[in-house]
Amino acid sequence: MPPTPWAVIAGVGPGTGAALARKFAASYPVALLARNPDNYTSLADEINKSGGKAIGISTDVADASSVKAAFSKIEKEYGSACAAAVFNASGKFFRKSVLELTEEEFTAGYDVSCKGAFLFTQSALPYLLKVAEDNNAKYPPTIIYTGATASVKSNALMSSFSTGKYAMRALVQSVAREFAPKGVHVAHAIIDGVIDIPRTKDWLKDMPPEAKISAQGIADAYWNLHTQPKTTFTNEIDIRPMLEKW
Amino acid sequence: MPPTPWAVIAGVGPGTGAALARKFAASYPVALLARNPDNYTSLADEINKSGGKAIGISTDVADASSVKAAFSKIEKEYGSACAAAVFNASGKFFRKSVLELTEEEFTAGYDVSCKGAFLFTQSALPYLLKVAEDNNAKYPPTIIYTGATASVKSNALMSSFSTGKYAMRALVQSVAREFAPKGVHVAHAIIDGVIDIPRTKDWLKDMPPEAKISAQGIADAYWNLHTQPKTTFTNEIDIRPMLEKW
Amino acid sequence: MPPTPWAVIAGVGPGTGAALARKFAASYPVALLARNPDNYTSLADEINKSGGKAIGISTDVADASSVKAAFSKIEKEYGSACAAAVFNASGKFFRKSVLELTEEEFTAGYDVSCKGAFLFTQSALPYLLKVAEDNNAKYPPTIIYTGATASVKSNALMSSFSTGKYAMRALVQSVAREFAPKGVHVAHAIIDGVIDIPRTKDWLKDMPPEAKISAQGIADAYWNLHTQPKTTFTNEIDIRPMLEKW
Amino acid sequence: MPPTPWAVIAGVGPGTGAALARKFAASYPVALLARNPDNYTSLADEINKSGGKAIGISTDVADASSVKAAFSKIEKEYGSACAAAVFNASGKFFRKSVLELTEEEFTAGYDVSCKGAFLFTQSALPYLLKVAEDNNAKYPPTIIYTGATASVKSNALMSSFSTGKYAMRALVQSVAREFAPKGVHVAHAIIDGVIDIPRTKDWLKDMPPEAKISAQGIADAYWNLHTQPKTTFTNEIDIRPMLEKW
Repeated sequence: MPPTPWAVIAGVGPGTGAALARKFAASYPVALLARNPDNYTSLADEINKSGGKAIGISTDVADASSVKAAFSKIEKEYGSACAAAVFNASGKFFRKSVLELTEEEFTAGYDVSCKGAFLFTQSALPYLLKVAEDNNAKYPPTIIYTGATASVKSNALMSSFSTGKYAMRALVQSVAREFAPKGVHVAHAIIDGVIDIPRTKDWLKDMPPEAKISAQGIADAYWNLHTQPKTTFTNEIDIRPMLEKW
Repeated sequence: MPPTPWAVIAGVGPGTGAALARKFAASYPVALLARNPDNYTSLADEINKSGGKAIGISTDVADASSVKAAFSKIEKEYGSACAAAVFNASGKFFRKSVLELTEEEFTAGYDVSCKGAFLFTQSALPYLLKVAEDNNAKYPPTIIYTGATASVKSNALMSSFSTGKYAMRALVQSVAREFAPKGVHVAHAIIDGVIDIPRTKDWLKDMPPEAKISAQGIADAYWNLHTQPKTTFTNEIDIRPMLEKW
Repeated sequence: MPPTPWAVIAGVGPGTGAALARKFAASYPVALLARNPDNYTSLADEINKSGGKAIGISTDVADASSVKAAFSKIEKEYGSACAAAVFNASGKFFRKSVLELTEEEFTAGYDVSCKGAFLFTQSALPYLLKVAEDNNAKYPPTIIYTGATASVKSNALMSSFSTGKYAMRALVQSVAREFAPKGVHVAHAIIDGVIDIPRTKDWLKDMPPEAKISAQGIADAYWNLHTQPKTTFTNEIDIRPMLEKW
Repeated sequence: MPPTPWAVIAGVGPGTGAALARKFAASYPVALLARNPDNYTSLADEINKSGGKAIGISTDVADASSVKAAFSKIEKEYGSACAAAVFNASGKFFRKSVLELTEEEFTAGYDVSCKGAFLFTQSALPYLLKVAEDNNAKYPPTIIYTGATASVKSNALMSSFSTGKYAMRALVQSVAREFAPKGVHVAHAIIDGVIDIPRTKDWLKDMPPEAKISAQGIADAYWNLHTQPKTTFTNEIDIRPMLEKW
């Protein structure tokens, strides 16, 4: 009998990451990766207490050895079959003229959004392929990446962020083309709008709630992607609230 | 108490349309539109016998009065609240040099894919808006359009088809931007590959089944779009089988 | 000795069309097509008086027989070799809700922008191919189409216009892929902004002149496309003034 | 009297870079940047002997201090007004599975194509802005970046290259939106095909010459971009040979 597969979420915080963790924890043991343990400790407790299974691992996705260590730990705990991997990390954000960005600030977007996504992909793929080879797997193994408006539109003062997000989208498309024929479902989500999370609670304050994206809605959309069969892969979706201008 | 809302599928045939009809019939009374009654008669029977509710209406989507008559009939049967409308029609297909197409052949793609989609949209929107105004509606009212590879890539010899599909995508984006703020979920699906239907059973014969898209998978994806809340609208998805080159 | 090739401009008016006509008239006899002779009469006079050669032909680009008659007339006057063809026509513009457009208004955009472009293309191609086969031709024969912001972005209330422009872009890409291998240069220009022409002289009045596109600048850009060799075809350019937001 | 402005080409080699250098040297003193002096020495000699003015500077575009030193040297030689800057550098190319790329190989594409472009942009902009402020400048100051098919399509095994090129395109769009209003013309060229240079002389050997892009054609296209007025900026062009499939 094949081992129970697990799910891994990188970039867990109080918003989208937490919603994703709860959603996937309803079906799989989950591993929650974040730099700061504050971002996963109480969430892992909550999941474990409510009948799920969760471990949190302090991880810097932009650091190769940190990512490798995280996946080694997951394998040791949960085994070698990954049903779903979600890359939801984003780096520090600098809204600055291209003339004022330091080299470190400029590359910060890429380091997390693209190099981090690459390291995460490299570590996750061997475990995803295990599920792809398992004819009894309930759903095709799935890896989903969280993009943004800046994945397809690069505004003034946004170059640090947008270069990382465009680059991540390129990575996703290349990975999709390479691994879909091997049965891995690779998808990219363009999250176009403000997500309704604790950090944004004062944004768009005089707008109705339909001006923000619900983290739960994102989690449901990612889960629906995961359940698609091998004959029907969606590689890209956009997501925006009904009041978003686009 | 508001009336039970219904769903309407234009372009019902033995493949995707039938899968869509069965999927939405599990939750709503459905109206099945097709030019040829052969395309809906036995399907409507099947739905009615298995506990659902279906009517078939012979409709030419490219003809304004035919579309209007169809919606009048639906309103008379089911009332004025539409939960979901799917435009799945496609016209006759001509693979020809731009030098060899007659004017009629060239415009045939537009007539069904875009003018037909426009007529369908104009008739469906008032009924969709009824559900948008109903605070107790289970899901936001949804209108979904079936696009193709040719909605975003226009190859040689494909101009009749691709001009219609590009134009339909423009229509969808305009309708989405106009009616999302009013609570209508408007979505476009880029179906990129051969759908596994009776008509294509001899295509890609020496390939495994994962070379074709499952009609059921499309129906599930459309249903998932329909269930998205107002905070989390997806306006475009792509769909392809795992073995598709793209 | 091969005949002197000519150029044809469809959609001649007091702005872009006139600038294009003057530009191409410096090198070729030109045929100026417009529905209303007021749009070409004085311009043709001006060109003929200043040493160039021009004929104006009243043409409805959305009418197949009118387009055919125009090209027959050109052939009779100038012979069978076309060096450059520019499709610069646009139909009447309706800024209206999709619910308020009549069928005639909705299809008006397509009729000129796409069906018109198709009819123009079909008539022009045989003459362009003549130049493609001529090894002594100075430049590859070129057909250029004037698009707009609405060729790639379809805003609310713009569906009549944008469906026509998206469809035209699909036509251009298909024609480019079919005829580039035969030596015809096919290009599409996304004109993104207000062109500085008599009709728009009161628009953006409190902005500096760099807020509008110069018709002369468009004409120069099209001419530069025309001079590209067979090894270096540009199939799409965008054009906007330095103060345009995009 | 303002100083004579100069042009700078980064990524000079025996192909496109050399053609660009010769083209811009016909109007401006040029600075030629390449890592290896072999790539510019004889070219600079040739330009200097034939009446132009050229200096070569050994530069690693991915290294901030190297780029800064290069521009200091240019300023010392030629003054502080830059008419045109071309970023034509590309890093080492790895065609490998995402599973087999080392971190160094994966980031190599970004380091040159995007971080290098950023460093080049930061150094060049102050000199370009000098020309933007000069009302007697012949043409708006221009910065052009050489992209590739992989700037918009990310194939399997190409992730190192395509992530860098997508990211560079994001950078260009952000810089364009920030600096166009200040009068700097920012453009991106999607070079879609094999360029006919010494290194590729054995590629596509059984195809006619129109299967490859001419470096001279690219140089002419970039020059034409440079001559566009402030009212008529093209921000993106594609370039392919007539026999390219796309």
